[in-house]
Amino acid sequence: MDQRTEEGIMAGNSFGEIFRVTTFGESHGEGVGAVIDGCPPRISLSSEDFREDMARRRPGTRSFSTPRREEDQVEILSGVYQEMTTGTPITLFIRNRDADSKPYEILRQLFRPGHADYTYFKKYGHFDFRGGGRYSARETAARVAAGVVAGKILEPLGIKVLAYTIELGGIKATSKNLDYVEKSSCYCPDPKATKKMEETLSRAKKEGDSIGGIVEVRVTGCPAGLGEPVFDKLDADLAKAVMSVGTVKGVEIGAGFEAARFKGSENNDPMIKEGFASNWAGGILGGISSGEEIVLRAAMKPIPSISREQNTVDREGQPSKLKFGGRHDIASIPRIIPVLEAMVRLVLADHYLRTKAVT
Amino acid sequence: MDQRTEEGIMAGNSFGEIFRVTTFGESHGEGVGAVIDGCPPRISLSSEDFREDMARRRPGTRSFSTPRREEDQVEILSGVYQEMTTGTPITLFIRNRDADSKPYEILRQLFRPGHADYTYFKKYGHFDFRGGGRYSARETAARVAAGVVAGKILEPLGIKVLAYTIELGGIKATSKNLDYVEKSSCYCPDPKATKKMEETLSRAKKEGDSIGGIVEVRVTGCPAGLGEPVFDKLDADLAKAVMSVGTVKGVEIGAGFEAARFKGSENNDPMIKEGFASNWAGGILGGISSGEEIVLRAAMKPIPSISREQNTVDREGQPSKLKFGGRHDIASIPRIIPVLEAMVRLVLADHYLRTKAVT
Amino acid sequence: MDQRTEEGIMAGNSFGEIFRVTTFGESHGEGVGAVIDGCPPRISLSSEDFREDMARRRPGTRSFSTPRREEDQVEILSGVYQEMTTGTPITLFIRNRDADSKPYEILRQLFRPGHADYTYFKKYGHFDFRGGGRYSARETAARVAAGVVAGKILEPLGIKVLAYTIELGGIKATSKNLDYVEKSSCYCPDPKATKKMEETLSRAKKEGDSIGGIVEVRVTGCPAGLGEPVFDKLDADLAKAVMSVGTVKGVEIGAGFEAARFKGSENNDPMIKEGFASNWAGGILGGISSGEEIVLRAAMKPIPSISREQNTVDREGQPSKLKFGGRHDIASIPRIIPVLEAMVRLVLADHYLRTKAVT
Amino acid sequence: MDQRTEEGIMAGNSFGEIFRVTTFGESHGEGVGAVIDGCPPRISLSSEDFREDMARRRPGTRSFSTPRREEDQVEILSGVYQEMTTGTPITLFIRNRDADSKPYEILRQLFRPGHADYTYFKKYGHFDFRGGGRYSARETAARVAAGVVAGKILEPLGIKVLAYTIELGGIKATSKNLDYVEKSSCYCPDPKATKKMEETLSRAKKEGDSIGGIVEVRVTGCPAGLGEPVFDKLDADLAKAVMSVGTVKGVEIGAGFEAARFKGSENNDPMIKEGFASNWAGGILGGISSGEEIVLRAAMKPIPSISREQNTVDREGQPSKLKFGGRHDIASIPRIIPVLEAMVRLVLADHYLRTKAVT
Repeated sequence: MDQRTEEGIMAGNSFGEIFRVTTFGESHGEGVGAVIDGCPPRISLSSEDFREDMARRRPGTRSFSTPRREEDQVEILSGVYQEMTTGTPITLFIRNRDADSKPYEILRQLFRPGHADYTYFKKYGHFDFRGGGRYSARETAARVAAGVVAGKILEPLGIKVLAYTIELGGIKATSKNLDYVEKSSCYCPDPKATKKMEETLSRAKKEGDSIGGIVEVRVTGCPAGLGEPVFDKLDADLAKAVMSVGTVKGVEIGAGFEAARFKGSENNDPMIKEGFASNWAGGILGGISSGEEIVLRAAMKPIPSISREQNTVDREGQPSKLKFGGRHDIASIPRIIPVLEAMVRLVLADHYLRTKAVT
Repeated sequence: MDQRTEEGIMAGNSFGEIFRVTTFGESHGEGVGAVIDGCPPRISLSSEDFREDMARRRPGTRSFSTPRREEDQVEILSGVYQEMTTGTPITLFIRNRDADSKPYEILRQLFRPGHADYTYFKKYGHFDFRGGGRYSARETAARVAAGVVAGKILEPLGIKVLAYTIELGGIKATSKNLDYVEKSSCYCPDPKATKKMEETLSRAKKEGDSIGGIVEVRVTGCPAGLGEPVFDKLDADLAKAVMSVGTVKGVEIGAGFEAARFKGSENNDPMIKEGFASNWAGGILGGISSGEEIVLRAAMKPIPSISREQNTVDREGQPSKLKFGGRHDIASIPRIIPVLEAMVRLVLADHYLRTKAVT
Repeated sequence: MDQRTEEGIMAGNSFGEIFRVTTFGESHGEGVGAVIDGCPPRISLSSEDFREDMARRRPGTRSFSTPRREEDQVEILSGVYQEMTTGTPITLFIRNRDADSKPYEILRQLFRPGHADYTYFKKYGHFDFRGGGRYSARETAARVAAGVVAGKILEPLGIKVLAYTIELGGIKATSKNLDYVEKSSCYCPDPKATKKMEETLSRAKKEGDSIGGIVEVRVTGCPAGLGEPVFDKLDADLAKAVMSVGTVKGVEIGAGFEAARFKGSENNDPMIKEGFASNWAGGILGGISSGEEIVLRAAMKPIPSISREQNTVDREGQPSKLKFGGRHDIASIPRIIPVLEAMVRLVLADHYLRTKAVT
Repeated sequence: MDQRTEEGIMAGNSFGEIFRVTTFGESHGEGVGAVIDGCPPRISLSSEDFREDMARRRPGTRSFSTPRREEDQVEILSGVYQEMTTGTPITLFIRNRDADSKPYEILRQLFRPGHADYTYFKKYGHFDFRGGGRYSARETAARVAAGVVAGKILEPLGIKVLAYTIELGGIKATSKNLDYVEKSSCYCPDPKATKKMEETLSRAKKEGDSIGGIVEVRVTGCPAGLGEPVFDKLDADLAKAVMSVGTVKGVEIGAGFEAARFKGSENNDPMIKEGFASNWAGGILGGISSGEEIVLRAAMKPIPSISREQNTVDREGQPSKLKFGGRHDIASIPRIIPVLEAMVRLVLADHYLRTKAVT
């Protein structure tokens, strides 16, 4: 135990103020999970409720995602009695299976470029690198599970969250048929673009490379009045939620970066009897929901784990070559889709409970 | 007092976990201010320290910003004894002066498109609309003041934060001479672009319109190890900090949205003996600083207050025309520059105190 | 600036989760105050509302309390528009006047036994010792002001908080005429005991000594259902609230320490149609209010500032004699009465907003 | 799902700011557990470390405690790699076994006097009453487990926490031989008193009744400087920690309630070269540790579950008789001893991490 042991590592694994989610677990440990404190009582909840979203996040269900088979069954360890929440902490646990740690042995020596190996080493000194440990995408299974519970709060209010791919490997969706999303292997609302995206994924796979993309999230049915200025604005908390997901490098609301090129007279959404004549604002004004659809986009970098040889250094800083064989996806899309939906649900459920002063 | 009085409005005016800043105040009330709880003792601090940053945020010091004269002198009401912090809460107060509330009288009836008038009305029912009240840019004076104190923590560590304009009204900076920033009326590192930006601002002013832009923030000297995964990642907290500033509609780290078009082999920064051969990551990996420069960009919409006539509705939802005469800027740039710097400083100071396990 | 400057002092000056109060200020600085974040909008509030409670806490209004004259007028710096709360942070400020720092000069060298001089020196190194600085009873003026706002939330719910002296300098109240409390110079419900308490105070004053006592706080009208187990139980938060007040050394709920001598068959309050046949529980079961009166008691030590000569050490640890001449009370009672009421109100208002699932 | 479902239940199951513990689980559900977020990395930890404290809390190991056999083995589900903490959330889980829910069936109809059945019903509507569910003493197993981890932080600092019985069923310990504590069936430092306490327990058991008592907790080796005024004072947080444990009805520091009868000249601990000549303050001045031993006492009511017949009402408020047969202890002492020690450890570990500015 060296002198660094006395350093404080400040708790950063909880999200939300009232609907408060704490995730835990590592990729190749016992499992991953979440404790939800602050969920209201008398909401129906059973293991069945998690099946659909967990399946969407699961690797291997779509082409191009990692062949690792995870069953990802959610066990409810506490907080539910007779399939109904009790208002006490809800613990969700997803046991790890089928974890092969051998390919990761090389990480005892070498850092993977673009990955968190190096920063975890610098911060914690001692860390579980097997399968990415805590910084593995595996942790997002806990987020998706928690998002299901958040969805149970939003559902009776008519608030719906839908995410879909609008760009992958440089291929942009040019049409938006939201009904097509679930049919697309890439959760893309454009059938033609889907096809090109599949080709791009194939090519990247063959090259031992990876690609990035952009996902749009759309919230319908959200009443006006959610958001707590000046710091816990709805858009600020959404930005944090989305940026806290691995591979996300950018987030924008409504017109986003394009708004920087608009004039005020173009960007201001005129008000009409029914609400707003346009929605460049993306449903949020002054950090508070306006009653319009909430629209945000997240940009994902290509996942850093690639099978091509890369230049790196070892733990002593000596240059080395790395050719990493672990199983991995070609892109964080489409498995990231239910994760982003879950994060948006967590924000909305929390903010809904934070204020009832809505119309 | 109607029945909505019982609704909880959850506190959202504090930022940071250890270095915790709470801002208060309205545009046309007594003043705006901040309480900082969690600032270490024995840091020198006096009213003088605030002068420079407050002046940069002040309207009227550059062309194209509102002619309202604010002196913006920061009074230290607590927490400092003999020009040195004591570890107790530091209260900073900036008294309002020269506030003309008359032009805002029309807001008793009409909502300004693109502004928070409508959402504040929906959320709070009763609010101070004079000068934008709590949602006025005036509130950012308190942020800048708090950022000065954060800077006092970062300074001895060699951590520096610099923000500058890279796009304004569609004009992009094509060269980056950071020494020029302070000389540019738009805080732009490109002299030629500055000139065009000035022309664009002039044109917009003549048209009674407003414009948006993009600011880049660069942090040098930040050690590896800051950031608390999985939710309080450094990039996640930066995204929230920046998005909580009015007019910001997008934020990106490092390659940002462009990363979505990269391949992994291009986007992964190769590791070398000295650290990293490139910095597409923008200095953050897995939510933890890597020791490289932190680079982020924020996109600002055109400010919603314009003098051109707009379509809107009144508080009863009846259509109306609004021609609003209040004083206002043409763009949130450049006055937003010190605000963004302040927010980034708040994040860094807080995360620095949250973990000392740095190299 | 020595190396201790880098140590984190964790923010500890806020209380409450939704109705969140942060106090600031020092005895001989500019003033003391509080920021309340999370107060619902549309509650009437003006400077007048504070007058009565501030007067009760004010020194010099009763015999035996310090002759220092404080006007203690509460300025509302933010969060209120047209005498109604807006849901934004409410800042209350009480300017210091009539502060004579001379008697405190000796504290540059010597520690007062029983006081926080020594621990503040050890913790912060640099601190404002004038008048006790941050650890002065003066800070409680901010608590009382915040408690007035909390009372505005409780009042329409019919929740009332009353504190009174049941023991002072060893003199116990043997009758409880709550109507007499306001008439008693010691806020004691027993006229005969009041007289003896006055004599005890006189004697202690003559001897240059101080005395302690016990205050009981009684809450009527509190509905069942307040309290958030397992840590934020109502009794746990009340204990913290009361123990956070200077000179308090013990707190008990209902039967309190006497419950340790009861049998279960005696201590269990039988349930009847109307609720409970007795109230040994003091209105709280399992950390949740039961609908019965909440009853708690706080024990106060004699205030440490006495004029008798005492043995102490200087900042280098060398033995010395201290004869301290600063103005001070003989007992924290009765001035502590409105402070304890305020703290209980803060807990109740916060817990009320934390849960509406009450009957 | 009735309309109450929308009510917010604010998360109250976490304790601590940096070393943050969230407990979960119910008596007759899957198990109970704790997630610790904010534990520093590189601390050795294995299942073995929990054995001793878990055994001390376990029922059936001493006479007079419930015959229910619990193995109480602590599984580490996350946060530890190769028997060393990693700085990520540590999840501890204690699976329930041997739970007979039949005796609790009657609680579907009747409330046990003195118990939380009634208040949980009022607050949550739907709750798990089997074995007391969330409000069972079973939950404290999670606290004890978390306290073991806190102890790992305190141990290298030389901070030790010891609790012992000083009164039980009216029998007071009159001698303090701390070496005897572990040998006493009641964790009492007085052999003669132990014998009388055993007799008192026997008599109460025969009568189908229960008894209360007082426990003293003593902390040695705590440096000066812990505690964060003005609200998160060390004594305030200790009071909350202790009062949050079931059956505790009172808490006092140092001289406690007796201090109310002292004069200042008696109660002020004179300062000497070595520190303090006495310790009436109980090691805390102004909410900050002074470097002296920290001494506190907690008063426990008799546990409410007794086998004697009691008057109560059913869920409709109709009078009824209750004769409850569930297994239960005669007193919360001695099983509460390791729980109180754990809570004090949680406070100290958290406050230690909150401030390093100690001597």
